[in-house]
Amino acid sequence: MKSFLAMSQEELLTLKAELEEQFKTEEAKGLSLNMARGKPGASQLAISMPMLNVINCESDMNTLLGNDTRNYGDWDGIGECRRLMANMLEVKKDNVIVCGNSSLNIMYDTVIRSMVMGVNGSTPWCKLDKVKFLCPVPGYDRHFKITELFGIEMINIPLGEDGPDMDMVEEYVNNDEAVKGIWCVPKYSNPTGITYSDEVVRRFANLKPKAEDFRIFWDNAYCIHHIFDDIQDKILNILEECEKAGNPNMVYVFGSTSKVSFPGSGVSAIATSLENMEYIKQFMTTQIIGHDKINQLRHVRFFKDIDGLNAHMKKHADLLRPKFEAVLTILEKELTGLEIGSWTKPRGGYFISFDAMPGCAKAIVARCKELGLILTGAGATYPYGKDPKDSNIRIAPTFPTPEEMEEATKMFVLCVKLASIEKLLSQKA
Amino acid sequence: MKSFLAMSQEELLTLKAELEEQFKTEEAKGLSLNMARGKPGASQLAISMPMLNVINCESDMNTLLGNDTRNYGDWDGIGECRRLMANMLEVKKDNVIVCGNSSLNIMYDTVIRSMVMGVNGSTPWCKLDKVKFLCPVPGYDRHFKITELFGIEMINIPLGEDGPDMDMVEEYVNNDEAVKGIWCVPKYSNPTGITYSDEVVRRFANLKPKAEDFRIFWDNAYCIHHIFDDIQDKILNILEECEKAGNPNMVYVFGSTSKVSFPGSGVSAIATSLENMEYIKQFMTTQIIGHDKINQLRHVRFFKDIDGLNAHMKKHADLLRPKFEAVLTILEKELTGLEIGSWTKPRGGYFISFDAMPGCAKAIVARCKELGLILTGAGATYPYGKDPKDSNIRIAPTFPTPEEMEEATKMFVLCVKLASIEKLLSQKA
Repeated sequence: MKSFLAMSQEELLTLKAELEEQFKTEEAKGLSLNMARGKPGASQLAISMPMLNVINCESDMNTLLGNDTRNYGDWDGIGECRRLMANMLEVKKDNVIVCGNSSLNIMYDTVIRSMVMGVNGSTPWCKLDKVKFLCPVPGYDRHFKITELFGIEMINIPLGEDGPDMDMVEEYVNNDEAVKGIWCVPKYSNPTGITYSDEVVRRFANLKPKAEDFRIFWDNAYCIHHIFDDIQDKILNILEECEKAGNPNMVYVFGSTSKVSFPGSGVSAIATSLENMEYIKQFMTTQIIGHDKINQLRHVRFFKDIDGLNAHMKKHADLLRPKFEAVLTILEKELTGLEIGSWTKPRGGYFISFDAMPGCAKAIVARCKELGLILTGAGATYPYGKDPKDSNIRIAPTFPTPEEMEEATKMFVLCVKLASIEKLLSQKA
Repeated sequence: MKSFLAMSQEELLTLKAELEEQFKTEEAKGLSLNMARGKPGASQLAISMPMLNVINCESDMNTLLGNDTRNYGDWDGIGECRRLMANMLEVKKDNVIVCGNSSLNIMYDTVIRSMVMGVNGSTPWCKLDKVKFLCPVPGYDRHFKITELFGIEMINIPLGEDGPDMDMVEEYVNNDEAVKGIWCVPKYSNPTGITYSDEVVRRFANLKPKAEDFRIFWDNAYCIHHIFDDIQDKILNILEECEKAGNPNMVYVFGSTSKVSFPGSGVSAIATSLENMEYIKQFMTTQIIGHDKINQLRHVRFFKDIDGLNAHMKKHADLLRPKFEAVLTILEKELTGLEIGSWTKPRGGYFISFDAMPGCAKAIVARCKELGLILTGAGATYPYGKDPKDSNIRIAPTFPTPEEMEEATKMFVLCVKLASIEKLLSQKA
């Protein structure tokens, strides 16, 4: 196909007229589709339904150690669930605290705790003039919302194929005492789907932070969320690497089963050094007597072990693959060679990241909305919701059916073309 | 029985020798009983077991509004659960946010949020030189732990038969800008079991706080936790009274089903003014995408409505009454007239509060421990764990069986007598 960049004004105008006709046809369909958030689809929720039967009024409600899951106790989670989550996150059981239904909540708690009380005895961040977080971009909007809420200054770090720009990360972390953290989704990153290379993980572990209370917020949200059976990303163990590098306390690892069992009704966990855990304990045990242990038991009885988890994730992969393929096939067919967009082809996770021509993302999202197709807001993948290039769009293919995804992507492509032509015409004008 | 205070040194010594013999006999039994915490007993947990069957893989998982409880959404709780919790707390549904499994966690979140960000736009408490909380005593140790953790100065306020000393409360709240909150368990108070009178509630509602960000932390933990069918305490609606008094934003009400369904696997809620909710919303929606809605649905489908809740609480009452009666009968029989202790006779809640002779509580708890009977630590019912009179002991009769409770109370009484004699002898010496 001919590149839009090579088209004359006349060619662009002719094409635009054609596409506007198509747009009207699509608009008339009155579609209503939401690809804004990384929500599992109905078919995915269905495969976890049997979990709701494994705990019933006949069940033995005791843990392997004989603790009654129905009563108070086990603030750090029941042992067998700690083990399951440890295996999922590829860390040791002793380094895991199982919490409630939301790893985002643990991250929020970790940040707000550091604001009020500091980190392992450091000056509370709220007493400092300036606190900064590094934010690999594009990234996860809900991470950025937490740091924004507390007035923490966020610094964009470009995210490449193998992880964040580590030269920049080292420059900031090793020299600026105000830099207290970095948000990472190290595997099947949200939204680009990339996985940090071994070298990147090692460079993380070998940071020499200027601030003693600098921490890596390692949100391993998609650790077992592969899309393919054969091609699966692997990632180095950050806890181990940090220990080896003499930085045992530098990282908090987060994860959950929100996209394994049920969003909102899963279990979450934090994994970190024993010293960090000891410090965190006084807050967690003041905050809550214990999390939902019946639900922890439900998860363990259903999944049994890491093999059970992986077998379950294979079912998810089988359901997700056609949706990702539907998007990628149409993007490839419709946009290759046009030079108006590029996109990622992830091997796992929940998203496809699309980079439109600079200055087009908002227009594309707005156009899609007119057709009844709700996308993640343009800019959402950047701190403060501000994509400096107005280029990145996060595509979330999981919630609709494959057929809906196909339909939606066709509309998306149409809007990309239209918005790009308008941009090009405005530049020529 | 003859008052210990009227006994001669010789009489006391003779009695002590007798009691020490009994102590040795009891010690030889090698009992192991824990009455430290307000944990439901096994028979209570059993009555909620059928709840685990109401949601299964055949269930319709949608809310009345058609939202899928298995997926993300409804950050403030599913509508029908908000209604149930509103009815339990005797407030309007629109004033309720249903959260996770722990009302303590909501209280912690509320305090730490105020520390970092202030209250509805006020100066963050962490920026102030001094923040104080009023603490009616004896009270709930986990409340005090939260404020202690954040370095908030706690001020003891005597708790009487009908509530806290309101002259003192008014004096502090209306004149000291550093006073930002007060911890209240207004109904079947922990540990004394008293319920605030209408006059006390009205005086609370009519406070004229010096600090605009003063808030009442109204932990209505035992709102439907009666022990008797016929004699049940009633309490005025604090939200309504505050509104009437022109202080609509002055109170946060908390509650949960931890002692209705399962500790750790229940649902909790906060009820407050719409203006407070609007402010809280930005934090809650940053903190979490949503709480466990499947568990919310489970609760609603099981209890159905407030009548279902009350019928369930009647079963709890039937199980708890014999335990409370076992304690009270023995206390009365063994200690009446001795002038070495007084105790409350609650109509609801989870505790009996025992006041020993000043300077005896720690010794009694230590003596009990020697017999294998674990009580709540002496002092725990006071801020900083310091009971100025070393007198108050919280008795938690819910976890053991009635027979165990009887056995335990006999031991307790023995230890009270021994410690009191030792105290009296040391005074005579």
